[in-house]
Amino acid sequence: MAYGDPMGHLPFREAIAEYLGASRAVRCDPSQVLVTTGSQQALQICAHVLLDPKERVCMEEPGYPGARNAFGAAGATVVPVKVDNEGIDVPSLIRRGQKIRAVYITPSHQYPTGMTMSAARRIALLNWASKNGVWIIEDDYDSEYRFGSRPIASLQGMDSDERIIYSGTFSKVMFPALRLGYVVVPRDLVSAFAAAREAADIFPATLHQLVMTDFIREGHFARHIRRMRVLYTERRRTLVETIKAELPGALEVIGAEAGMHLVVLLPHGVNDVAIARAAAAVGISTIPLSTCHSKAPDRGGLILGYGGVNEDQIRIGICKLKTCFPSKMCP
Amino acid sequence: MAYGDPMGHLPFREAIAEYLGASRAVRCDPSQVLVTTGSQQALQICAHVLLDPKERVCMEEPGYPGARNAFGAAGATVVPVKVDNEGIDVPSLIRRGQKIRAVYITPSHQYPTGMTMSAARRIALLNWASKNGVWIIEDDYDSEYRFGSRPIASLQGMDSDERIIYSGTFSKVMFPALRLGYVVVPRDLVSAFAAAREAADIFPATLHQLVMTDFIREGHFARHIRRMRVLYTERRRTLVETIKAELPGALEVIGAEAGMHLVVLLPHGVNDVAIARAAAAVGISTIPLSTCHSKAPDRGGLILGYGGVNEDQIRIGICKLKTCFPSKMCP
Repeated sequence: MAYGDPMGHLPFREAIAEYLGASRAVRCDPSQVLVTTGSQQALQICAHVLLDPKERVCMEEPGYPGARNAFGAAGATVVPVKVDNEGIDVPSLIRRGQKIRAVYITPSHQYPTGMTMSAARRIALLNWASKNGVWIIEDDYDSEYRFGSRPIASLQGMDSDERIIYSGTFSKVMFPALRLGYVVVPRDLVSAFAAAREAADIFPATLHQLVMTDFIREGHFARHIRRMRVLYTERRRTLVETIKAELPGALEVIGAEAGMHLVVLLPHGVNDVAIARAAAAVGISTIPLSTCHSKAPDRGGLILGYGGVNEDQIRIGICKLKTCFPSKMCP
Repeated sequence: MAYGDPMGHLPFREAIAEYLGASRAVRCDPSQVLVTTGSQQALQICAHVLLDPKERVCMEEPGYPGARNAFGAAGATVVPVKVDNEGIDVPSLIRRGQKIRAVYITPSHQYPTGMTMSAARRIALLNWASKNGVWIIEDDYDSEYRFGSRPIASLQGMDSDERIIYSGTFSKVMFPALRLGYVVVPRDLVSAFAAAREAADIFPATLHQLVMTDFIREGHFARHIRRMRVLYTERRRTLVETIKAELPGALEVIGAEAGMHLVVLLPHGVNDVAIARAAAAVGISTIPLSTCHSKAPDRGGLILGYGGVNEDQIRIGICKLKTCFPSKMCP
């Protein structure tokens, strides 16, 4: 009940290190694990430790708005780098020049597009980062859920030069209200991260850490992941099939191979913010794809989460969503 | 279990607003209450919203090191202002000139000296802050526990100009591992504070908020405070009496009228950091007073907490502590 370690409760960090080694090929020992209140705090601490005001940090375009917020709040300059079907465009990133301090990426399951970063891009990125002393922030927010293929190993496990800050969260694999995540920090940065965490909010709440330690150690966590993988596979299939049945040809589905969300691209000229607002009015929560862009994209879209809704709710949800589209989209 | 409001769970904020109105004369409505993970996060958010790099913030000398950390992390310039037995020296503060953006104070129970800010100083500070557009951060971290006299009302309740950011915590009145605190924010700043909180860690964990809401609403919290007040009164008395019996004349006790800690001043020339280190080696945790100063003070001291130890432990603790002092101090 007293004050705890700014890095987190040691047995919990041991359980996390072991889990990450076995399931994500992350190479670390518990002393490198910092328990956070979720991915956003990880980003905030990374921004504070790695970036001085005006320094340049690259991130994927489209990319996670929370990262843009955290880097912006630290006064850094955010440089967007486009994403294609191999993940972030590393050649384009390298052409941005030498004065890049850090790169934020989601290589296992790009947010929001769902792409997986290719092996060639991973190797090119690591080589360039090592040569130029660039930090890589790898956000592995939902890699537990990959369907049809085995989980992709982390980039961190390929890194022999300690350039990677690896971030994960229990918000997706468990639930957001838990407020628990973790960062695996290169050994050289551990004391700076611990100090930043202490200045931010001293240490993480103890009870949730104790419970999650037992949950992992007693095998419930692995069982939970296996069970949820089956459940999410069904939900994803239902969502994709319902979209195809109800809105044939109108929406292009991307990124449905992993995670707990997918993206539907809208026809050119359809405003995704307006659709999302109309959807909210009928009780359907979506995220406009354009909020993940630094400037208006060619084509809008909607991010649809299926983690927290059952198959009936998915079918009803798509029918409600359909009413929000211009009539020419709905045959 | 899903994502929550960055400001916190509304029923919890309602319970806090009501409690603060009744017990601390704080004037606010629930929309102004931001739930934090404790005082340190409140300070970090205040620093982020109120202070640009190089801007000047005044704080008490000696004062709370966590505040210095948070302001320093934001790149602000921290200006120490000395404390006397009426609290922060407001005339000296005013003489620092116009270019002060914010002042951090602990008026109910100065940390660490335990002084209460006088009414004259309070009025002078509020008038000056209003005239000069200075923000006041009032940290009311342990005012629930005041012995021998009624709790002092908050400074926030005297402020008619919305210059005060009022911060409180459940770390003292409940326990630190809970990681729950709150800030009462002037209406003009609510959206900026909510955005800063979202960039920091999105929202506070839900379960602890639900439990504390019930704990307050069902009357347990008020009973807990009444019960602990009696307990801490006894512990404080035991601590003061044991110090007087074991170390007569060697230590000067200050700030024993409230809270869960007091300060013992050491004789001139005795190094408090060395004593604290020796005490830690025999299992006694103390904080050297000099860590609360921006530069080495004339006279060192030790901050002794009595919240988490019973009367027997206090007696044994002082006997152990005695072995750490130079023999000339121990008759």
